[in-house]
Amino acid sequence: MFKNYGLLGIEHLEREEIEKILELAFFYKDCIRKNIKKLSALKGKSVVNLFYEPSTRTKNSFELAAKYLGANVINFTTQGSSVQKGETLKDTVSTLTAMGIDAVIIRHNVSGTPMYLKKYINLPVINAGDGMHEHPTQALLDMMTVMEYKGTLKDLKIAIIGDIAHSRVAKSNLIGFSKMGAKVFVAGPSTLVPEAAKKFGAIISYNVKEAVKEADVVMGLRLQLERQKKNLFPSTGEYAKYYGINSTVLNLAKPNVLLLHPGPVNREVELTSEVMDGEKSCIGEQVTNGVAIRMAVLNLLIGGNEYEKAV
Amino acid sequence: MFKNYGLLGIEHLEREEIEKILELAFFYKDCIRKNIKKLSALKGKSVVNLFYEPSTRTKNSFELAAKYLGANVINFTTQGSSVQKGETLKDTVSTLTAMGIDAVIIRHNVSGTPMYLKKYINLPVINAGDGMHEHPTQALLDMMTVMEYKGTLKDLKIAIIGDIAHSRVAKSNLIGFSKMGAKVFVAGPSTLVPEAAKKFGAIISYNVKEAVKEADVVMGLRLQLERQKKNLFPSTGEYAKYYGINSTVLNLAKPNVLLLHPGPVNREVELTSEVMDGEKSCIGEQVTNGVAIRMAVLNLLIGGNEYEKAV
Amino acid sequence: MFKNYGLLGIEHLEREEIEKILELAFFYKDCIRKNIKKLSALKGKSVVNLFYEPSTRTKNSFELAAKYLGANVINFTTQGSSVQKGETLKDTVSTLTAMGIDAVIIRHNVSGTPMYLKKYINLPVINAGDGMHEHPTQALLDMMTVMEYKGTLKDLKIAIIGDIAHSRVAKSNLIGFSKMGAKVFVAGPSTLVPEAAKKFGAIISYNVKEAVKEADVVMGLRLQLERQKKNLFPSTGEYAKYYGINSTVLNLAKPNVLLLHPGPVNREVELTSEVMDGEKSCIGEQVTNGVAIRMAVLNLLIGGNEYEKAV
Repeated sequence: MFKNYGLLGIEHLEREEIEKILELAFFYKDCIRKNIKKLSALKGKSVVNLFYEPSTRTKNSFELAAKYLGANVINFTTQGSSVQKGETLKDTVSTLTAMGIDAVIIRHNVSGTPMYLKKYINLPVINAGDGMHEHPTQALLDMMTVMEYKGTLKDLKIAIIGDIAHSRVAKSNLIGFSKMGAKVFVAGPSTLVPEAAKKFGAIISYNVKEAVKEADVVMGLRLQLERQKKNLFPSTGEYAKYYGINSTVLNLAKPNVLLLHPGPVNREVELTSEVMDGEKSCIGEQVTNGVAIRMAVLNLLIGGNEYEKAV
Repeated sequence: MFKNYGLLGIEHLEREEIEKILELAFFYKDCIRKNIKKLSALKGKSVVNLFYEPSTRTKNSFELAAKYLGANVINFTTQGSSVQKGETLKDTVSTLTAMGIDAVIIRHNVSGTPMYLKKYINLPVINAGDGMHEHPTQALLDMMTVMEYKGTLKDLKIAIIGDIAHSRVAKSNLIGFSKMGAKVFVAGPSTLVPEAAKKFGAIISYNVKEAVKEADVVMGLRLQLERQKKNLFPSTGEYAKYYGINSTVLNLAKPNVLLLHPGPVNREVELTSEVMDGEKSCIGEQVTNGVAIRMAVLNLLIGGNEYEKAV
Repeated sequence: MFKNYGLLGIEHLEREEIEKILELAFFYKDCIRKNIKKLSALKGKSVVNLFYEPSTRTKNSFELAAKYLGANVINFTTQGSSVQKGETLKDTVSTLTAMGIDAVIIRHNVSGTPMYLKKYINLPVINAGDGMHEHPTQALLDMMTVMEYKGTLKDLKIAIIGDIAHSRVAKSNLIGFSKMGAKVFVAGPSTLVPEAAKKFGAIISYNVKEAVKEADVVMGLRLQLERQKKNLFPSTGEYAKYYGINSTVLNLAKPNVLLLHPGPVNREVELTSEVMDGEKSCIGEQVTNGVAIRMAVLNLLIGGNEYEKAV
């Protein structure tokens, strides 16, 4: 059950748990829209943002989510390496636990770190992205965004385009949308689309146009420019040409297609500015939904899950 | 109107708006003095401190001002360059906006950045210093400090000494004091006192003694030591000798002259320790007034401007 | 008196003051255990965490302690050097004082810095570790931990093992435990155990087994790996062999001995994992007590010291 494990990955969530999170998140989105941002579900609680990889977007989103619910937030950032000078990750987290922290939000470059931690500490652990493994709150906010516009996820065609192999976003989304009854197509450079994606229910395509055709949702993934600097195929120019999403590509999808991207976008690489700033883009809504999802997850894990407590 | 634009520069403020900000700031200074620092005018609001240049003084001042009024503060600092890896400034700020932020406080090394941002986002933007352009809250706190001791700004002689050419503090003050009816003299090394200052109403002098003579206010400016490291004229020694403010210089001004400096001071360069720590120095008051001004600006922009709300 | 000076070192505390701090800290530990972490003793107060040395553990502990009591916390971290670019420490702190800060928590690599500051500012200064001088809140939390399990400190045998010469933790503990009537033995490599320790009441031993024999408390100290990198004697391997605390060493102490370490531990150097994670280890309790001690100190200095205010 979600409450005991924290949120380690979408793979551990039951369909009903996903629905419960989304339901509470829609309630919180409504609060944000109405400018009700001083709630009390986490009053007297403290969470730590433990980020072993650089991040501003996800860190800020969790920080605001916790603060909107009245929690204290400790930001604990480390410069790069997986362990700090002379202290193991486990000891770092044990120390934070002993200080009275109520939940640990962790991002780490090593896959499986949140799961490893969970074995040793008796606190909810929230995975904010671990290596190439999972990024569950991203998938939840993506599902929420689609639910918001389509009313259901069942039987929708979702096309995920890009570097599937290295993307924890792709993996969590693939698992999540499949669980909710959607059909997920993945496409990208052949070197970046692993056969293993089938295991999670993906329909693999190496042709972007085929994947996007008649899709209800098209999701671009961030190209890791760091990788491209090593002169790996494809270059950003090649990527944009063959795998970039522009209006021609998007027009192959259904007329009311939704365009998603986890951000930050490399403009004119994964998406043209035209489609990114166009009317099919849900990128702004995704960001707002990200805060709402994190509020819901935090409340469900350490706040008591009562709407009354929330307002 | 101030409310719609945020606070981009002193040049956009009407005289009445300046008076209104100062009036509320005096109220807040009184709160700080009486140790009333848990106000509620910004309860449930969140502001982001978006600093693209290193700063501790101004950042801390805004952070405390917001917290004294009950707001949440997100500190968003970037290492140096004007844009982050793979994301434009506009996209960064759009993301923060979508997270439910109520105002953006921005410092940036490129002149005009706050104005540029304002075109794209529907939130108050507060300029905390942009390149060589403006630093409006600094000018407001300087005007407040003079008002506090002199009761008026009208017809006062203000002497601003130093690197006028590169100083956003000088520029904002020049515009602000002129608007309020003061006469502003600027003096400094000829290479650092541009003719363009006349456009904003300055009376240019290359002789410090002449500028300071019978002045009501003498303001030193911070020498950018980074510039001096490139062996530009003047060296810090030359600067101190010809343009530094010491007791001999200060005695040329009126007996009840006020000494101001935006800080941090390079002791024995712009000011001797004797005058900096002397009885004419208002440097400590400037710092307190800085917090009060920022509280006033934040309340006027996003809090509703009611005194009752403030206490 | 404690209230006027802040907390500069254990050497300035009377025995009764130590007892008063511990008493309030036990009250706060009880609050933390019961998950009462939204107190109001410091409501409307603001403290600054001014850390001139890298630290996460102590900084987080002070930050949480202040937040649990309802205070605002400003984190002011500097990159390395003892003074910031162009501003003296004294000017930095004067500026913070003028902003309405109620207390300064300072860590600095130069011994005596908090005392130096205290001469110039009219605010409580809390020493969070200064060079090789003192680390008073660490000693207080260590005394609290021993008091918790033993009921008294009087006549206990305390063995402190390690680099006594460079350790502010050792010095503060030596002074503190001696004041409270305990007998403190110190042991470690001869180059790292100074004769001067006798001045503070230590009984010096160069033999770890002798120091630990029949001890009520064994305290390991962190080995500064930075020093060892310079190929100084002892290497970490030699240290572990001759001065490391393992179960054989610990069995020489009394059966109900307490094992303490200020953290972070270099596993298998100062302590074997076996004893560190064993039942005699109080390391987790020390961390919790650290938060409780800092809450007590903050309340006594700037909150009014009333239990009623605390809850």
